[in-house]
Amino acid sequence: MTYCVGVILDAGMIFASDSRTHAEVDDFAKFCKMTVFERAGDRVIVLLSSGSLAGTQAVISLLKQRADAAGDALTLWNAQTMFDVANVVADAMRDIERRDGRYLADSAIRFNASFIVGGQIRGEASRLFRIYAEGNFIEAGRDTPFLQTGETKYGKPIIDRVITPSASLADAAKCVLVSFDSTMRSNLSVGMPIDLICYQRDSLNIWMRRRFDEGDAYFAALSRQWSQGVRCVFSQLTPLQWPSSVDGRPIPSADIKE
Amino acid sequence: MTYCVGVILDAGMIFASDSRTHAEVDDFAKFCKMTVFERAGDRVIVLLSSGSLAGTQAVISLLKQRADAAGDALTLWNAQTMFDVANVVADAMRDIERRDGRYLADSAIRFNASFIVGGQIRGEASRLFRIYAEGNFIEAGRDTPFLQTGETKYGKPIIDRVITPSASLADAAKCVLVSFDSTMRSNLSVGMPIDLICYQRDSLNIWMRRRFDEGDAYFAALSRQWSQGVRCVFSQLTPLQWPSSVDGRPIPSADIKE
Repeated sequence: MTYCVGVILDAGMIFASDSRTHAEVDDFAKFCKMTVFERAGDRVIVLLSSGSLAGTQAVISLLKQRADAAGDALTLWNAQTMFDVANVVADAMRDIERRDGRYLADSAIRFNASFIVGGQIRGEASRLFRIYAEGNFIEAGRDTPFLQTGETKYGKPIIDRVITPSASLADAAKCVLVSFDSTMRSNLSVGMPIDLICYQRDSLNIWMRRRFDEGDAYFAALSRQWSQGVRCVFSQLTPLQWPSSVDGRPIPSADIKE
Repeated sequence: MTYCVGVILDAGMIFASDSRTHAEVDDFAKFCKMTVFERAGDRVIVLLSSGSLAGTQAVISLLKQRADAAGDALTLWNAQTMFDVANVVADAMRDIERRDGRYLADSAIRFNASFIVGGQIRGEASRLFRIYAEGNFIEAGRDTPFLQTGETKYGKPIIDRVITPSASLADAAKCVLVSFDSTMRSNLSVGMPIDLICYQRDSLNIWMRRRFDEGDAYFAALSRQWSQGVRCVFSQLTPLQWPSSVDGRPIPSADIKE
């Protein structure tokens, strides 16, 4: 499995991805799922991949190859809007699907690449998309300023509580890391290292990028602080009151059942 | 969908279930998913249902009918162990599947009843099982003292952090309610009322049972306290440090990228 999160804020964007891939439980590995196309001052484009590794790698290789080729075709380097970027990615996905899909139709692992794609191109605001395996896509907005793929559920409650468009980059980065911590604690198919980018709005370059490896001191401290803090909050929650006992004996159930 | 949790502790057991059922988003309703077979001083058996409502209701009706029938057959009222109880439930599930399954084979909603079953019979310790749709089952133990069904992921992180066999009934009840709060906040297919039973070990009767309806004052306060507490812990987490800027300008990305 995989866990990827993209967040779009007034202050900028956050991108994060885990690195665990697996075919079976006895066949897992690490691969970076974050790909950056950056030309400082002009554009920052970040892709987070989920799905079968052969599929996502093929799409990324094709995108790079097309972007570097001479010619007039629309590519990640010459697209003028993030909407066009999303379409360029979708086209590559569909091309790979056309090439490989029918050979995988009867396989246990069907073709299923999907992406979170976001960033900023000079002259346009930051934008964030989730491209489905079929190549159609949705764009995050102010009502839902984040997009997740993969094992999204364990880490969603904290994001639902904290992320709003006005959250600071620092808070959103912490929140996304806590979300990864919760996910990795409850699910083995998501694993470190975690790749994180905090993109400052209109900076058109990436100067905050970090990889959190197994044993990373900051991540370990964050995880410990969070765990202790949550337990502390928990211990202070008002306990549920039950009807008091009668003469020191519990009330028979017939008296209080609905 | 559904969310049900059973917990087995040194101090007793917790059972909780939501009440939302739905066929489509425009066809949802409330049904209690908790069924109790109780004979004070002799046995307490609690069933939490998940799956298609027609299937789970048929299984429960069959179990009740068989339990009330005269005769020597093994039933929920005369079983001497919780293992036998789990088998009685599994047999009823398989009987309903044999009756209905083939008529549903091509339907969008296949036969898929599953249950969390737990409780205590006099002469035996408390036990907790999860019975799969196929009728086979697993039993909770000290390493994993809880079982969930339905929309399990949103609410698992808090249970993973708090529930151990030595947790008190009061703490476990709070934890399960927080787990429901997180789930309902992030997923519409789980909804109130929540039915909760706290069973005190060896009491052989249920005197702590409560339903939390929409707007329940305790649940609303718990939810608010938890939300505020989590935000407070979150705000105190150490922020991530980035390389300091150079002459007030951000470091160019080329300098710090891996």
